[in-house]
Amino acid sequence: MSEFIYLDNAATTPMSALAVAAMNPYLYEEYGNPSSLYSLGQSARRGLDQARNRCARVLGSRPSEIVFTSGGTESDNAATMGVAFAQKKIGMHIVTTAIEHHALLHATKLLELLGYEVTYIKPEANGLISPDSVLSAIREDTVLVSVMLANNEIGTIQPIKKISDVIRQKADELQHSIYFHTDAVQAPGALSINVDDLGVDLMSLSAHKFHGPKGVGLLYIRQGTPFVPTQAGGAQERERRAGTENVAGIVAMSVALEEAEYRRVENSKKCVALRDKLFASLCERIEGVHINGTLEHRLPNNVNISFEGIESEPLLMALDLEGIYASSGSACSAGSLEPSHVLRAMKITDERSRASLRLSLSPNTTEEEIDKVVGVLSDQVKRIRKLM
Amino acid sequence: MSEFIYLDNAATTPMSALAVAAMNPYLYEEYGNPSSLYSLGQSARRGLDQARNRCARVLGSRPSEIVFTSGGTESDNAATMGVAFAQKKIGMHIVTTAIEHHALLHATKLLELLGYEVTYIKPEANGLISPDSVLSAIREDTVLVSVMLANNEIGTIQPIKKISDVIRQKADELQHSIYFHTDAVQAPGALSINVDDLGVDLMSLSAHKFHGPKGVGLLYIRQGTPFVPTQAGGAQERERRAGTENVAGIVAMSVALEEAEYRRVENSKKCVALRDKLFASLCERIEGVHINGTLEHRLPNNVNISFEGIESEPLLMALDLEGIYASSGSACSAGSLEPSHVLRAMKITDERSRASLRLSLSPNTTEEEIDKVVGVLSDQVKRIRKLM
Repeated sequence: MSEFIYLDNAATTPMSALAVAAMNPYLYEEYGNPSSLYSLGQSARRGLDQARNRCARVLGSRPSEIVFTSGGTESDNAATMGVAFAQKKIGMHIVTTAIEHHALLHATKLLELLGYEVTYIKPEANGLISPDSVLSAIREDTVLVSVMLANNEIGTIQPIKKISDVIRQKADELQHSIYFHTDAVQAPGALSINVDDLGVDLMSLSAHKFHGPKGVGLLYIRQGTPFVPTQAGGAQERERRAGTENVAGIVAMSVALEEAEYRRVENSKKCVALRDKLFASLCERIEGVHINGTLEHRLPNNVNISFEGIESEPLLMALDLEGIYASSGSACSAGSLEPSHVLRAMKITDERSRASLRLSLSPNTTEEEIDKVVGVLSDQVKRIRKLM
Repeated sequence: MSEFIYLDNAATTPMSALAVAAMNPYLYEEYGNPSSLYSLGQSARRGLDQARNRCARVLGSRPSEIVFTSGGTESDNAATMGVAFAQKKIGMHIVTTAIEHHALLHATKLLELLGYEVTYIKPEANGLISPDSVLSAIREDTVLVSVMLANNEIGTIQPIKKISDVIRQKADELQHSIYFHTDAVQAPGALSINVDDLGVDLMSLSAHKFHGPKGVGLLYIRQGTPFVPTQAGGAQERERRAGTENVAGIVAMSVALEEAEYRRVENSKKCVALRDKLFASLCERIEGVHINGTLEHRLPNNVNISFEGIESEPLLMALDLEGIYASSGSACSAGSLEPSHVLRAMKITDERSRASLRLSLSPNTTEEEIDKVVGVLSDQVKRIRKLM
């Protein structure tokens, strides 16, 4: 057993050994600038090209449709602003949901400051977004819809293909294109991210969520999608994202993505079994447990629960002391006193929201770790409840 | 002697052994998300804090004034747009120069599309920007001036402190602030980048130019400078740049920056000696050599020359075959058929501009390498001239 139990894989993951090994040569020997024309530069260029092909195979896309970025936040920002700016003359309305990651929601806030209008769809009580609610949010001047594939806090998986279908249908009626973006940051290794199966025009990924390095991500942009780059400069990435490429990080990401996809079915099965055991044991051993979000359409690795009357903050501190690392929700909002915007949008009370605990597993999680966590949680919840 | 001679250090540099060593623990063991509150996250947070302190010491700034980015291009974009957006109500005029990096020039082009006006100052024939020309470009509605510290193509060093003084003086007269940004991407390890000595409010750096990793950089933002973040999302970097931090890359950058500063005086002396030997030998051995840009105010490692009648493209290919890696100018524009915008702004003819060859040295460059390069260049220039 490792010296600690890491159950915050939705926040970030350790790099896989394969990804580290793939990265290393590009730190030291293969240091050429991929834009340089001599051999050393072209060798880095080949590394980039191979990485692009690898990612494209997993996405079922053309390599030219992949734009490497500095992470999920940049991808979400670039997708939203890139299409909104490009389509300004067609319309200035965007549809998204109230439960997106802040990278998306704060990008649309910026667009609102610039005069765009944004509709934020509320989820059902179980955390799902209905295709009908998307349909009725679309207006004559809607140019972009953005719905995340799987939620980072509660792990709910949205019906992206069905949403895509209603968007296409509505766009036909309106006789102008409506582009569809999904933040799929939590999906690799758990769900298929084939862009045609999903029916999306843009998709964001972040390497460090699937055992790749921090500081690198990608944005898939379907050929023909109007797009204004938000990071201007050199002609890198076919003029869609300027700046010398993070070759080592990109190569490592591509290997991690391939590995995540290769092991997806097997790992998902394993995670589902552990997750369901964790849910069941907690409900069995502890009274007053609420599960946040549907169990049916849920990431294999996500457990999000509230223990009645127990604020998550002291519970997390107690877990930390026992060497168990978990969170109350998004890492990007950790330490914030605001209750989760996701749970609030699901009309979960602030009290239950402040009690929310997110345990996110990985294929490396073991049964022994789950048993230990159930024991510690059960003891701690009892201890804290006695103090009250 | 290494198997090849790398004279394109202005394009990118290999990572230093110290930087790689500093990076490694953060790829594998110390993988926590710095926003996470438990021990593993806080340990990554400490790595980030130490990196910020290290960078601040080199810049002579407060740690809180350092914002980590994905590189020089992002820093230039964020500086320009960040201040322009924040000061929109004060004024919509920006002053910069015609010889900036494309990261800056294309960001100001974007701002022009959004209704801003930009004045592009031309350099003198020697590549220098006179403080007087900046003074006369400033208008009532100027909110930002951006002048690069050292040019990436011709290595000319601008009189940043003097330019800062005229800006402050003019701002006093106009009774509103004018913020001053410098792209110092080429400077670390060669020039002092103390922000008070330079008198700048914002400064861009890129790690891979000073033996740090690709895909990471920083933007210095002086306390009190109005700034709208262009990458929105989580609350990282004191809400000036959202997104999970590239901890490994940032730590490596900070170590590389410290190392570059520590060895700066010694390394500069070494480079100047090699550079001057290279200039002198080339002028001695080859006829019709033109030096592009002043020799007096020039980066220690920059040689930019044109051989009369010799296009750089075939010459670079011949050098590559001999294992010598150099370029015709900016890597970001390599392969472009357009003559350099920098040389054109200096009123250098397109013919001479198409003949420009940039050799950029590093402290690892040896005398033997310089001798070999002079020999090969002299042979190749004679060979190509004979063919004409």
